[in-house]
Amino acid sequence: MTRPLELHPDRLFPADPKTRDVARALYAEVGGLPIVSPHGHTDPKWFATDDKWTDATSLLLAPDHYIYRMLYSQGIALDDLAIPHRGGVPATDPRAAWRLFASNYHLFRGTPSRLWVDHVFAEVFGFDVALDASTADLYFDRINEALATDAFRPRALFDRFRIDFLATTEGAHDSLDSHHAIHRSGWGGRVVTTYRPDGVIDVEHEQFDGAMKRFAELTGEDVYSWRGYLAAHAKRRADFRAAGATATDHGHPTAATANLSPVEAEALFGRIVSGSWTAADAELFRAQMLTEMAKMSVEDGMVMQIHPGSFRNHNAGLFASHGRDKGADIPTRTDYVHALKPMLDVVGTERDLSIILFTLDESVYARELAPLAGHYPCLKLGPAWWFHDSPEGMMRFRETTTETAGFYNTVGFNDDTRAFLSIPARHDVARRVDCAFLARLVVEHRLEDWEAAELALELTSGLVRRAYRIDQPEPAARAA
Amino acid sequence: MTRPLELHPDRLFPADPKTRDVARALYAEVGGLPIVSPHGHTDPKWFATDDKWTDATSLLLAPDHYIYRMLYSQGIALDDLAIPHRGGVPATDPRAAWRLFASNYHLFRGTPSRLWVDHVFAEVFGFDVALDASTADLYFDRINEALATDAFRPRALFDRFRIDFLATTEGAHDSLDSHHAIHRSGWGGRVVTTYRPDGVIDVEHEQFDGAMKRFAELTGEDVYSWRGYLAAHAKRRADFRAAGATATDHGHPTAATANLSPVEAEALFGRIVSGSWTAADAELFRAQMLTEMAKMSVEDGMVMQIHPGSFRNHNAGLFASHGRDKGADIPTRTDYVHALKPMLDVVGTERDLSIILFTLDESVYARELAPLAGHYPCLKLGPAWWFHDSPEGMMRFRETTTETAGFYNTVGFNDDTRAFLSIPARHDVARRVDCAFLARLVVEHRLEDWEAAELALELTSGLVRRAYRIDQPEPAARAA
Amino acid sequence: MTRPLELHPDRLFPADPKTRDVARALYAEVGGLPIVSPHGHTDPKWFATDDKWTDATSLLLAPDHYIYRMLYSQGIALDDLAIPHRGGVPATDPRAAWRLFASNYHLFRGTPSRLWVDHVFAEVFGFDVALDASTADLYFDRINEALATDAFRPRALFDRFRIDFLATTEGAHDSLDSHHAIHRSGWGGRVVTTYRPDGVIDVEHEQFDGAMKRFAELTGEDVYSWRGYLAAHAKRRADFRAAGATATDHGHPTAATANLSPVEAEALFGRIVSGSWTAADAELFRAQMLTEMAKMSVEDGMVMQIHPGSFRNHNAGLFASHGRDKGADIPTRTDYVHALKPMLDVVGTERDLSIILFTLDESVYARELAPLAGHYPCLKLGPAWWFHDSPEGMMRFRETTTETAGFYNTVGFNDDTRAFLSIPARHDVARRVDCAFLARLVVEHRLEDWEAAELALELTSGLVRRAYRIDQPEPAARAA
Repeated sequence: MTRPLELHPDRLFPADPKTRDVARALYAEVGGLPIVSPHGHTDPKWFATDDKWTDATSLLLAPDHYIYRMLYSQGIALDDLAIPHRGGVPATDPRAAWRLFASNYHLFRGTPSRLWVDHVFAEVFGFDVALDASTADLYFDRINEALATDAFRPRALFDRFRIDFLATTEGAHDSLDSHHAIHRSGWGGRVVTTYRPDGVIDVEHEQFDGAMKRFAELTGEDVYSWRGYLAAHAKRRADFRAAGATATDHGHPTAATANLSPVEAEALFGRIVSGSWTAADAELFRAQMLTEMAKMSVEDGMVMQIHPGSFRNHNAGLFASHGRDKGADIPTRTDYVHALKPMLDVVGTERDLSIILFTLDESVYARELAPLAGHYPCLKLGPAWWFHDSPEGMMRFRETTTETAGFYNTVGFNDDTRAFLSIPARHDVARRVDCAFLARLVVEHRLEDWEAAELALELTSGLVRRAYRIDQPEPAARAA
Repeated sequence: MTRPLELHPDRLFPADPKTRDVARALYAEVGGLPIVSPHGHTDPKWFATDDKWTDATSLLLAPDHYIYRMLYSQGIALDDLAIPHRGGVPATDPRAAWRLFASNYHLFRGTPSRLWVDHVFAEVFGFDVALDASTADLYFDRINEALATDAFRPRALFDRFRIDFLATTEGAHDSLDSHHAIHRSGWGGRVVTTYRPDGVIDVEHEQFDGAMKRFAELTGEDVYSWRGYLAAHAKRRADFRAAGATATDHGHPTAATANLSPVEAEALFGRIVSGSWTAADAELFRAQMLTEMAKMSVEDGMVMQIHPGSFRNHNAGLFASHGRDKGADIPTRTDYVHALKPMLDVVGTERDLSIILFTLDESVYARELAPLAGHYPCLKLGPAWWFHDSPEGMMRFRETTTETAGFYNTVGFNDDTRAFLSIPARHDVARRVDCAFLARLVVEHRLEDWEAAELALELTSGLVRRAYRIDQPEPAARAA
Repeated sequence: MTRPLELHPDRLFPADPKTRDVARALYAEVGGLPIVSPHGHTDPKWFATDDKWTDATSLLLAPDHYIYRMLYSQGIALDDLAIPHRGGVPATDPRAAWRLFASNYHLFRGTPSRLWVDHVFAEVFGFDVALDASTADLYFDRINEALATDAFRPRALFDRFRIDFLATTEGAHDSLDSHHAIHRSGWGGRVVTTYRPDGVIDVEHEQFDGAMKRFAELTGEDVYSWRGYLAAHAKRRADFRAAGATATDHGHPTAATANLSPVEAEALFGRIVSGSWTAADAELFRAQMLTEMAKMSVEDGMVMQIHPGSFRNHNAGLFASHGRDKGADIPTRTDYVHALKPMLDVVGTERDLSIILFTLDESVYARELAPLAGHYPCLKLGPAWWFHDSPEGMMRFRETTTETAGFYNTVGFNDDTRAFLSIPARHDVARRVDCAFLARLVVEHRLEDWEAAELALELTSGLVRRAYRIDQPEPAARAA
């Protein structure tokens, strides 16, 4: 027996009828607005080549670590899901992998993945029966048929999704070829890059040496001298801005920052590039570089994003067999109050600087992040991130930050995804949860209805555009 | 004036009428199911001898640290409550102790103890007036009268409570005499033990020396050599399995694990048994033993439970006068991500291993435990524990773990109690809260109603039976 | 277009109609009760001189760091808001500052400041149009007119607000002149002081030397000897008690306590007063002094409040330009379980001692504070504090502490404010949130309605009066 698949128009709205009415009314005004996606991990090559995707498994299953980490946690082998390992993509029949996913789809009950995937199935592919073992083949075939049509090429979906702005993320050692190709193509979609220099900052990353070599080639600088290294960053930041970037991004293990003297910084850098560093040096160098990046942002106006606190590649066996980014990253307790102070001592009172803070440690929302963002002019709060990008997680974010930071020190939603087809689903969840939160404030007589309507618009559109400086024709450089 | 006591059929269900209807319907299907209690601290002697309990105070008040810690916190002396101290049971009139409890019963408003105790009064003893100073004697007399009847013997209540499976917890140095007596008796109740070797692992425990001596006697091994010590554990694990155990349990101060080389481990063990250990050695030995126990679980298929994070005997004065387990244990902040890694590096990818993690630090639910259990095949999440075994605590557990770990990486409910009469009450609270959570997901159109019904059954019965391997005729040993 | 300003009678009550009805009924009994304010920072000089306040900006904007930290966080300069800096009050036109506040009033949407300020505008000043750019002058002029009348003098407002008890906070080196003047004046208002000796305990405070000098003058003791220093504290505690104080207060960076031997303590004190201390010494001395203060409280019966965990003056640039208490204090992660043990080892089982614990780290509510207060006779829980003094913060406090500590180990509400006009608003929010929480318990059949009514009264009046020993004619000294 097949079960129907239907996206209820009131999904995620509170049960209380009066509150639901208010939420519905708020959502009616913002649910259909264009999407602004200022931070994510889609592949710019998709939009450069506009090539068709080939099949359901390689598009929807194999790249989505939210999906396969859950299946893996229940004892399913990654090989059986066609997840690439260090030796390449395993010789798994894509249909068999899809069937395995389908017959275990109940595992996702109660998770945001379920909400996103059902939204993709219903809205993007038009399914009206639910995915399970009995419909696995139907799904696999129909998705593949759709992907073979022009209507499902990347640019066509970009337009259909009404995406107004989409930022990808590239390393400091990336050529930006895809972005240049997009711009040269004359296509009207606004796809820009983001400067993420972790590869040339984190000496503990296994590809640091290669990244530095490429960094030198791309900039022509002596990146093994402290002065040349900083100059190379400045050059590449300019390259990225020329390719549309408005922001940088930094994914460090902790939020540690440092404020070393030039002499100390140069000596530390010497140890880093000579290979004679300790783990403490590696951490201190990452910390110092956040401050260096903040200083450069004061100069060139790029918005700075800090995404700290992930313990990468926690599963040693899996890292050995499959490498990084395989769903084995685990959040850790993260301090911000002490960690950010050295950087804030340098740039904290800059009014034209914008630093957006993210966390995987929700205990800091009320205790550290909201008080920091509710005080420092340069600090803003990024939305609920990664493991907390869920209806409950978003609600906790609002409930624990609004009291101290208000709404206006937040920056709207980030989908932060490599799953392109799920972007509308993710923004829809965020809009619904924000409307639900606002509706409660209205019904409890803490906001007027017209204020809630203004805020719904700000949370969907205004705040993100301003925070990421999307509408500034030129980067907001410090007045010379 | 006496007040009525009545258990409302809709208690703990959400206020919203539609959500309440859904919760009520879900509960109708699971509220009456038999009880599976895979972890707790009832006394197996009760079921071995089937002796009658003597009076309300010694059964319901004196052993229940949830009850007397609250009374103590408000300035009531433990002696006045008939709580045993190091010199024995104080010469307190049981009726006077009961009156003191009754006249302070308002202190429990808003606590789970209130819910459990009222349930026991109404359902087990049939009271229809509330406990307070005016009804103290009525309660004391009627309870004592009931306890004098055969219908209130342990085995009769076990049957009346419809308990399908009940695990107690015994030390590695326990004879298991009561369990053997139960099995020999031919009684049909399934009461099994659990292997809790803390007494011979925690050298900081004041009874370590005695426990080791007994451990040697029971196994005939040279438990003071590393090889003999491990062999003794293996023997006792086999004894426990023969007595029905499907699980082990480990109650360490932290979740630290270690992965020492055999040489290092043997040297450490040498310091432990020679008495020349430091506090760091004691902690490292506990850490190493979690990994050793995990390796043995891979071999013998016993489910491993880790209950870390309690600062035992915090009140120095009370420990001096009354000893341990007197309501003076306090939770502490607990790390899992770094702490578990050494053990997971060894056994993390074992698909037949099952490790159930508990916590007293709710800040780790969303940040650490759900991401770990939502990735590692061997990890599952135990339910809200001890101080958090409350309606709010259970709801926080679901709200912060489901998004990342789903429902299927959880293991149903544990009552974890020594208060036998409260077992049905505790399971009833858990079932109601789970139904309330599921009902919200249904009304917010995040689950279909038939999915919620399936999940209610899983949370009550399916998950716990599978997680604790209750229905396996033989322990799930690794295929030889 | 002006917008109406109206305080809805149902504000902050839950949306569900049945729950709202219960909340409304509970609030009807407690909403109008007199105010007991046992901890706050109003200026006793106001009540001593009864002088009129001069204008809206200097009364409502310039002293309220909740207000100007939010404006500052959005890039508004403190100078433009008439906030005093180290050089004095800037030459800002008060009307211009007020207009800037008014035109940015939307920033406070969703914050408790918005609730408090609107309550002041509507209830104290009688406005029926909302504050915004268009009504800024209307507000400024009308407020100033009102302040020029006798009805808005401090004592008149004290009576109008129906304040029954108001505690201010003074340093150990304060003359208490204003309090003596209040008492001499024959005015009937009960305004008392609180002993806050941080200035002579925290050697890292920039004014420590001056405070010690004044401490010596006021007591005639040799405060630079350990014995004399303790004697000076005892004298000043007696002075404060004579001026009505029932409590002490301690605002340390952490909750650390210590239990040094007399010899160690004296040696530590020697390093402190000789200026040869380290940061660790400073911390250890603060820790030891908490224990010394607790011992004195056992003697003299003063209630002890501990307010730990604020990282003071986080913004280095702002501290340099504007000094302390400028909205730049940030909460930090705070441990209590280990930190308090040395003190509790000394005084933990004293039944006549009362120590009220506060926190800026909500992760400790369920994990540490509720278990500690639910066990130790001397410990009680202060209400949600500072950044968490919000509807959500108060609800989290109840939801995470009640299960383990119950209601009776809490102490009612503290407004903790220097914004005198907002005191009724703050107590009103607290009463409404407590009624909302109780209403939910009633509707979920976890409390009877008559129990909730008793509790609402306790949370508003009974608990605070008993916890702060407000109705004891003499301090509760240990029976000699």
